[in-house]
Amino acid sequence: MGKSIAIVGSGLVGTVLAIALKQQGHQVFVYEKGDDIRTLDFSGRSINLALSARGWKMLNRVGLEEKIRQFGIPMYQRAIHHLTKEEKQPYGIHGEAIWAVSRGGLNKKLVEWAEEVGVEFVFNTPIWSVDSKRGILYMSEQEQQEWRAITHDVIFGADGAYSKVRSSLQRRSRFEYQQSYLPIAYKELVIPAKKEGGFAINENSFHIWPRKDFMLIALPNMDGSFTCTLFMPYTGEVSFDSIKTDTEVTAFFDTYFPDALQLMPDLVELYAANPVNSLVTTTCFPWVYKDKVALIGDAAHAVVPFYGQGLNAGLEDVNVLLDCLAAHPQDWEGALDDYQHARKVNADAIAELSYRNFREMSELTANPMFLLRKKIESAFAKKYPDLWLPLYDRVTFSEGSYQEALAIGDQQAQIMDVIMAMAAIEEKWDSPEIEEKIKQLINENRGF
Amino acid sequence: MGKSIAIVGSGLVGTVLAIALKQQGHQVFVYEKGDDIRTLDFSGRSINLALSARGWKMLNRVGLEEKIRQFGIPMYQRAIHHLTKEEKQPYGIHGEAIWAVSRGGLNKKLVEWAEEVGVEFVFNTPIWSVDSKRGILYMSEQEQQEWRAITHDVIFGADGAYSKVRSSLQRRSRFEYQQSYLPIAYKELVIPAKKEGGFAINENSFHIWPRKDFMLIALPNMDGSFTCTLFMPYTGEVSFDSIKTDTEVTAFFDTYFPDALQLMPDLVELYAANPVNSLVTTTCFPWVYKDKVALIGDAAHAVVPFYGQGLNAGLEDVNVLLDCLAAHPQDWEGALDDYQHARKVNADAIAELSYRNFREMSELTANPMFLLRKKIESAFAKKYPDLWLPLYDRVTFSEGSYQEALAIGDQQAQIMDVIMAMAAIEEKWDSPEIEEKIKQLINENRGF
Repeated sequence: MGKSIAIVGSGLVGTVLAIALKQQGHQVFVYEKGDDIRTLDFSGRSINLALSARGWKMLNRVGLEEKIRQFGIPMYQRAIHHLTKEEKQPYGIHGEAIWAVSRGGLNKKLVEWAEEVGVEFVFNTPIWSVDSKRGILYMSEQEQQEWRAITHDVIFGADGAYSKVRSSLQRRSRFEYQQSYLPIAYKELVIPAKKEGGFAINENSFHIWPRKDFMLIALPNMDGSFTCTLFMPYTGEVSFDSIKTDTEVTAFFDTYFPDALQLMPDLVELYAANPVNSLVTTTCFPWVYKDKVALIGDAAHAVVPFYGQGLNAGLEDVNVLLDCLAAHPQDWEGALDDYQHARKVNADAIAELSYRNFREMSELTANPMFLLRKKIESAFAKKYPDLWLPLYDRVTFSEGSYQEALAIGDQQAQIMDVIMAMAAIEEKWDSPEIEEKIKQLINENRGF
Repeated sequence: MGKSIAIVGSGLVGTVLAIALKQQGHQVFVYEKGDDIRTLDFSGRSINLALSARGWKMLNRVGLEEKIRQFGIPMYQRAIHHLTKEEKQPYGIHGEAIWAVSRGGLNKKLVEWAEEVGVEFVFNTPIWSVDSKRGILYMSEQEQQEWRAITHDVIFGADGAYSKVRSSLQRRSRFEYQQSYLPIAYKELVIPAKKEGGFAINENSFHIWPRKDFMLIALPNMDGSFTCTLFMPYTGEVSFDSIKTDTEVTAFFDTYFPDALQLMPDLVELYAANPVNSLVTTTCFPWVYKDKVALIGDAAHAVVPFYGQGLNAGLEDVNVLLDCLAAHPQDWEGALDDYQHARKVNADAIAELSYRNFREMSELTANPMFLLRKKIESAFAKKYPDLWLPLYDRVTFSEGSYQEALAIGDQQAQIMDVIMAMAAIEEKWDSPEIEEKIKQLINENRGF
């Protein structure tokens, strides 16, 4: 017997969840506060997606993997733009790629596909409050108006980092909640396609200009352009506060990103027009109320974007939720409770990994010793795949849990600290001595 | 020129703030979601107040100290009820007292006094949202109804740990917020006055039955009764989950609080009737928006009650706010910004001290070595008041900042750890050797 299910939020996680639940025979209604995304020009505050194993696994489960691969671009490596040279760093030890996909484009398709399978969308309908006990959504165009009440069997909050469904749970006693902002913000920019068509720089790379306290990244789009994101502090010497005028912007890019500047004819216009966006991490618990309400994706765990795992983690939520429902087909309360316990520890782990990765991206990728460290790890992992899977690969290309990835990654880091402290490591990094030393250290750690 | 000021919440901090601002010539309106407290029977979920130096200082500033002393009861000591004996521990090294005051009784008086000086109260008017930029309060009886909008020059959120004014700020970008619950809850109980009148136990003591993971406390009321609070985990072997029936309650008190049980004829009725209340800590920042909105008291910093400083900290907020307004009479934005920076570090410090003090109250006061430690500190402090002010005295009886108290307290704890580890400390605790050792350790710490 199908349930009447409300999903608040028509973003990527909400629509995939809608499709999955509809496929299982439920009635599914998606409430979206804004317009139908298919009518919108979607840009200005999105960081392009990088889909990896966890995301693909869920998309495959609803039968959409192949369709979506059609408009994704595989990125096999980091292209690191130092001031005077460019360097490549492969992502996967076995040639794996992360996939650049347009957030807006994918979202439009997902709404279309969801409608095709019979999901009902209710646009322009903000939810202001949720009565968790009775499963009531309160909605109206403006918060100050009289609210309408609609009841469903189950309500999912897939309404993102600023979730209203979560706000309602937050009023309940014993709801643990934290929201915290980085002192770093971001602004979207563009490298357009070449006049004659085609990509201005290699399209199968994730481009990064690491400058320690700030950085620029670029991900390819199907039309030959790149969506760029500038990450920089709000305040300080080099910051969104200090770089404002067209002259300051041009001088800043000329100093720190001269190669990118050549490729960005609309830089000053876009810099002036696009907003400075904040980077929030939220954690909360519980994620569910009995068999009535559940949070999913960013609504449950918004993370900073530096591991490219925000969407992948949200889609893995959906995957685990479906597993829990399959294990308790007649018991939603038990299923939702299993879901939240299975996911909470992993959400906390990916939040921590994402937070740490800003430093890896912005500072360490500019450091030759860090790049050597990655090269040693990668060489050893290729030769001894049973002994070593690098942290990035475990997070991005494996299905092992984030919690395990964090724990094993910390052990590996300790081992690599010892290795990198060895004399003349630059000369003998691929010697049998190093290999044996790593093996010995793994054994001392009782192996993983 | 007076401002039109809205204060949300007619609790203790809100009413004292209202009186102070009214005295300075502003128009002051207090919006209260519930009934006029003067019409209410106020009980069941309050922990009695313990007013100390910071609270009295502010009450004195608005001319109410003497009036309020009339219905307070000084408590000069902890009366520690071990299972088989009772022990006294003085609070202040110079005989100071903390003052038991009825929360409900004081609040009723404050509303009365505020009305007498011309503060306008608007009862039964919940605020659902605040437009910080424009200084608009949105209100209506029920959240789901059409809201009315009222504009003021300045809006204070004095609406407690679950502040709606704070919820509105929380929607702003870069608002840091955390709410966290203890696994321990509390229930209010009563030791009534003796049949023939008068107090059943010493009224000039703060009574405490420390049992490590749980404890009972009792504070005197003017009518001869004591308001008791049982603190206990939600779940586990001894917990609100496991102790429910009348038989379980009586057996539990008979085992752990036999002397109190004799004084509580209505125990099982009250235990069944009164709610189990949660203990939340909230932290946030910023506390203010320009010259328009400011949080104060629990709305800005709800702490757990184990240092008896919740209200005192809130009244100190008012005091500092008035100082800041006096320093910037024409610049509310500057005054409010100074206020939040002056108070935030101290609010964080008292939150930490309050959190730690559960262990001191529930566990350490039952420990002979801890009581000896306090005795050594106290003796040394009496003899060398310039060298040592114990942490409790600094928090409770001094006007030094909480931040400084926390830092100095940590230094003192290190010194006392060394002292308590000395051989045969039980025998020689008041010897010149110990005194000299403390002096030497203070010197090594460069003195404080």
